[in-house]
Amino acid sequence: MDQNGREERVENGLDMEIADGDNNKHKKLEGVEEGEESVERIFAKQEVPSWRNQLTGRAFGVSFILSVLFSFIVMKLNLTAGIIPSVNVSAGLLGFFFVKTWTKFLENCGLLRQPFTRQENTVIQTCVVASSGIAFSGGFGSYLFGMSGRIAQESAGQPSAKDIKDPALGWIIGFLFVVSFLGLFSVVSLRKIMVIDFKLTYPSGTATAHLINSFHTPEGAKLAKKQVRALGKFFSFSFLWGFFQWFFKAEDNCGFANFPTFGLKAYDNMFFFDFSATYVGVGMICPYIINASVLLGGILSWGLMWPLIETRKNDWYSAELSPKSLHGLQGYKVFISIAMILGDGLYTFCKVLSRTLIGLYIQLQGKDPKMALPVDGSLPPNTLTASYDDQRRTQLFLKDQIPAWFAVAGYVVIASVSTATLPHIFPQLKWYYMLVIYAFAPALAFCNAYGCGLTDWSLASTYGKLAIFTIGAWAGATHGGVLAGLAACGVMMNIVSTASDLMQDFKTGYLTLASPKSMFVSQVIGTAMGCIISPCVFWLFYKAFDDLGLPGSQYPAPYAVVYRNMAILGVEGFSSLPKNCLKLCYIFFCGAILINIFKDVMERKCKKFAKFIPLPMAMAIPFYIGPYFAIDMCVGSLILYVWVRINKAKAAAFAPAVASGLICGDGIWTLPSSILALAGVKAPICMRFFSRATNTRIDNFLGS
Amino acid sequence: MDQNGREERVENGLDMEIADGDNNKHKKLEGVEEGEESVERIFAKQEVPSWRNQLTGRAFGVSFILSVLFSFIVMKLNLTAGIIPSVNVSAGLLGFFFVKTWTKFLENCGLLRQPFTRQENTVIQTCVVASSGIAFSGGFGSYLFGMSGRIAQESAGQPSAKDIKDPALGWIIGFLFVVSFLGLFSVVSLRKIMVIDFKLTYPSGTATAHLINSFHTPEGAKLAKKQVRALGKFFSFSFLWGFFQWFFKAEDNCGFANFPTFGLKAYDNMFFFDFSATYVGVGMICPYIINASVLLGGILSWGLMWPLIETRKNDWYSAELSPKSLHGLQGYKVFISIAMILGDGLYTFCKVLSRTLIGLYIQLQGKDPKMALPVDGSLPPNTLTASYDDQRRTQLFLKDQIPAWFAVAGYVVIASVSTATLPHIFPQLKWYYMLVIYAFAPALAFCNAYGCGLTDWSLASTYGKLAIFTIGAWAGATHGGVLAGLAACGVMMNIVSTASDLMQDFKTGYLTLASPKSMFVSQVIGTAMGCIISPCVFWLFYKAFDDLGLPGSQYPAPYAVVYRNMAILGVEGFSSLPKNCLKLCYIFFCGAILINIFKDVMERKCKKFAKFIPLPMAMAIPFYIGPYFAIDMCVGSLILYVWVRINKAKAAAFAPAVASGLICGDGIWTLPSSILALAGVKAPICMRFFSRATNTRIDNFLGS
Repeated sequence: MDQNGREERVENGLDMEIADGDNNKHKKLEGVEEGEESVERIFAKQEVPSWRNQLTGRAFGVSFILSVLFSFIVMKLNLTAGIIPSVNVSAGLLGFFFVKTWTKFLENCGLLRQPFTRQENTVIQTCVVASSGIAFSGGFGSYLFGMSGRIAQESAGQPSAKDIKDPALGWIIGFLFVVSFLGLFSVVSLRKIMVIDFKLTYPSGTATAHLINSFHTPEGAKLAKKQVRALGKFFSFSFLWGFFQWFFKAEDNCGFANFPTFGLKAYDNMFFFDFSATYVGVGMICPYIINASVLLGGILSWGLMWPLIETRKNDWYSAELSPKSLHGLQGYKVFISIAMILGDGLYTFCKVLSRTLIGLYIQLQGKDPKMALPVDGSLPPNTLTASYDDQRRTQLFLKDQIPAWFAVAGYVVIASVSTATLPHIFPQLKWYYMLVIYAFAPALAFCNAYGCGLTDWSLASTYGKLAIFTIGAWAGATHGGVLAGLAACGVMMNIVSTASDLMQDFKTGYLTLASPKSMFVSQVIGTAMGCIISPCVFWLFYKAFDDLGLPGSQYPAPYAVVYRNMAILGVEGFSSLPKNCLKLCYIFFCGAILINIFKDVMERKCKKFAKFIPLPMAMAIPFYIGPYFAIDMCVGSLILYVWVRINKAKAAAFAPAVASGLICGDGIWTLPSSILALAGVKAPICMRFFSRATNTRIDNFLGS
Repeated sequence: MDQNGREERVENGLDMEIADGDNNKHKKLEGVEEGEESVERIFAKQEVPSWRNQLTGRAFGVSFILSVLFSFIVMKLNLTAGIIPSVNVSAGLLGFFFVKTWTKFLENCGLLRQPFTRQENTVIQTCVVASSGIAFSGGFGSYLFGMSGRIAQESAGQPSAKDIKDPALGWIIGFLFVVSFLGLFSVVSLRKIMVIDFKLTYPSGTATAHLINSFHTPEGAKLAKKQVRALGKFFSFSFLWGFFQWFFKAEDNCGFANFPTFGLKAYDNMFFFDFSATYVGVGMICPYIINASVLLGGILSWGLMWPLIETRKNDWYSAELSPKSLHGLQGYKVFISIAMILGDGLYTFCKVLSRTLIGLYIQLQGKDPKMALPVDGSLPPNTLTASYDDQRRTQLFLKDQIPAWFAVAGYVVIASVSTATLPHIFPQLKWYYMLVIYAFAPALAFCNAYGCGLTDWSLASTYGKLAIFTIGAWAGATHGGVLAGLAACGVMMNIVSTASDLMQDFKTGYLTLASPKSMFVSQVIGTAMGCIISPCVFWLFYKAFDDLGLPGSQYPAPYAVVYRNMAILGVEGFSSLPKNCLKLCYIFFCGAILINIFKDVMERKCKKFAKFIPLPMAMAIPFYIGPYFAIDMCVGSLILYVWVRINKAKAAAFAPAVASGLICGDGIWTLPSSILALAGVKAPICMRFFSRATNTRIDNFLGS
């Protein structure tokens, strides 16, 4: 998940900005820059272990622990607001911390056989990122959960039985296993072209590599230790805070998550601070403009538009409808946010695709693509003359080969197996849809991996949405097009997302002298882990929280409804929209595109103001679930802002660690909390908020 | 209030330890020690203004503002738990800040006629301390409010009309005016003997002088500026936090003050953190042992004794009694805590009195009392050879004389006026009681001023209790002995408390070269201010909060009940106590004395462990009102402890400022909050806590 498209800036995690931010901080801290000759000279005396020795048992042990941790975190984020920040920094830090502690312990006992190398660290990083990536691309907060009856109830139209597939542990694991490895095999042969010949930057992968390299220098190790301590401190705080909050949440309407911080009126419009350590942490990691955009979107929608539309109650829609009905106010919320997401997605898709094609064209002509293209957010290009670093890296990168026949055979075998298997899981997904998808998939996977290397934007969910609309329309309403579309979306997303993940990891491996073979094996093992862990984690949530996916609950899973409604829209057209909703959707669809164009124009003409233009994708999230998490994120921004003002160097070094601690602690608290929920243990106290009038009534009721 | 007896360590504010602590910190910071020759040489070039010029309009303007501020704070503390920390540091800092800002402003405008001197600073300090001292010695949280019908309702026995005098602005101001100035005149003539001849230390006064001296050196001014900034920051935070809390407190049972932090069971036994910034600040200022003692007392009483006694419900006392009845559990709470307070008070009284007498005896023999007595907490004795500092200070101290005839005449006139007036206010207080009190008062005032100079312990409230028992018993139950006792307590407390205050101020003046005349005038003006401000502030509280003085309310005024019950005990004997209560009272009375003896023995034999022995007086407070404020204070202790561990120098320099900020901000918030209450504006939201079962009932009730 260290590379995500613009679209995922919202759904998957704003990783481009984050990773880039980390990278910059990192550079400031360590002074290690790509192309600087010193990096590999520092490590020159260190022997690089063979690819088999890079894959140690302890590395996969630690990877497994961290995979579980991050799967919980990503799952929680999937199911709450859907904004997922990069786990790279935390994974890197914690992986380093665990193995370092372990090797130190063995060293003291005189039992250490193999020292902890940066290659091993890269293996852990790759494995954890691959595994927790499944928690996102598995669609537990989007397409996969969108198939369930519970989400169908909240969606447009009358769901028939063939449009519903409720989650079950068995078929989810099977589904993930047959689709998640395809991406790996489809692009593995292209690694030399992408990494060495094209010299693509892969900003996130490069940043991760710098982080790992720095950990293994003495200075870096010292800083890493301090960062780990900060992370640990805030991890504990956040965990204990989650624990403390639990006691006051006897029911869903109780507790700190319902604190009307700005008054009851504001609370009714979802404006409140819900004391979530997770989203404060997310806000600290995300750039200010994301947080500001989310808040702006929240104010625009819940502060302005919904109250205005509500005044048209009996005119635009029937007042007798249940508040959940998509023919009422809920419809405006869902479809306007879909319109904005699609508008933004379409623009980004066109932009990245055109850059990819132009870049590729120039590349094939033998020129450097970066000379021709203004790639924002990318690192300074490698020096073209082969430096010592480049030579040594290239030499090791080319040492271990993965044969081309292996890749092709792997792809064909897995594609055949999944073509044969998937129609059994989803009868609506005919085998010939699969064949079409698998014919196009390698090309799209390459496009995504290449675009991601150039811009750090993975378009996985955009390709997924493409599949929803095309396959859904092809199948048609009468043949279960909704479910076919959602399933096709899953297949597509998994392929293109793992493909760009893998290439990103190859870049990291290239820069840390890790063997491509060990990277590939680590990614395969990580993906396999993810195919087991993620469904189990999701299952725990699904069983523990009865109201999972319902709006207003602790885990509203906003994207599940959005994805399902996209599929319905694709299959059934606009018939289900309430009055004037389509008009508003057009306005916001075009608005999203216009804002993007304006932002890009400003980027070239007047860079100073470009950063103040909000991101439509980020603005769309609160449209459906409300702006409360935006307030958490802005609190995070505020903390970071004050911290930077007080001590810039310290903030740069420790803010990511503190934020990771906050996110991880709260995330891991969901494990005991869902176990408690499963065991039927309910919190003893309910903290509630009433208006004074209601309170008087309650006093009379309790008194009598 | 910068000198208080052991007894007031609890009621009035633990000032001995605090002032001493400040002093030590101060010494560490500035390196200015008494007897160090440099102090007056630093200021040698600065001209000392004449005593008239020390009394500037701006000084009294600032004093008035600060008096109002501190009267609110002291009143709030009086009416909540009764623990009042020293206001010296805050008063010094804020006084310096206000006048410095003002003079700076004038200087920039070219309008400054008179520079800001340390003498002027001392005048402000003296005036503010005298004024806010009345808020304590006026007995608004003890004897004076104890006369009211509301407190009588909660006390033992059937109150008759002649045992009740409800507060009214008129008579309170009158009462304070006729009794508060007597102390000043009774000891003013002894200033040379006490300060120059006896060279008494007056640790609090000395510490204040050091603080003021340091502010007026360039280094000190810089630190003071930083401290003021820290104070201001936490002042704002604490004020805003109070404001925020207000919104959630629609009724008395709502809000953060009823937060069952440790669960509902613990909350029922008063164990919870009530988010009071004031008591967190108080905990930061008070020594660890005080906070630990309070918590220990709370655990002993509410965690152990009361639940145990409650199991004897139908045996020891009738289960049908209202929970407020003193014949039930409430009786144990009130009388056992009185027993401990009296035991501790008696021991301290004997100890300080014996030291006073021995010290006086040795002094009159021409020896230095400190050579003979181990005075704990006192500063190193002045060098006996007349240093430059001593010479200069003595010269200026003796320059302005207050004639003896003036003091005697003043005393006689005021005593006559009050003897004539008081029986009109309290018909139960016969004029011959007054004569007796006024005959003894100067001797007791001297004793208290001398003892305070030696040990920094003012025994004001102990002398007050003495008056309760003697005058109460003399008057007898049939002649309104309860009210006579309480009124006599007030007269006595005011005299002895202002006497020691004045002498403390003379010491401060001596060390800052402020004239005794200006000190005296400032004290008179400050006292007059206090006689107006304090009753008005009390009146605001009394009118704004209907449940003032009721147990369990926001302002339980615990000492009002305690004082009234002491008076009843003195007049009526032990008849009203429930079963076994007297036995327990004896045990705790003796226990308090034994703990004190043990502590003093350890102090000499094994100083290391002495500091771990709790203080019975501090332990007694939570017996009646519950340990919730002890938890606040321990949080304050914890914060301080962690801070000291992280950065000792910074903690020493800024902890008092931060604590003052927390106390002042929350204290001043009570002004708008009581105005809101007066105006009938109630908070909009009620934050409440229910058990899960109750919550389900409420959900059903609200749903139907």
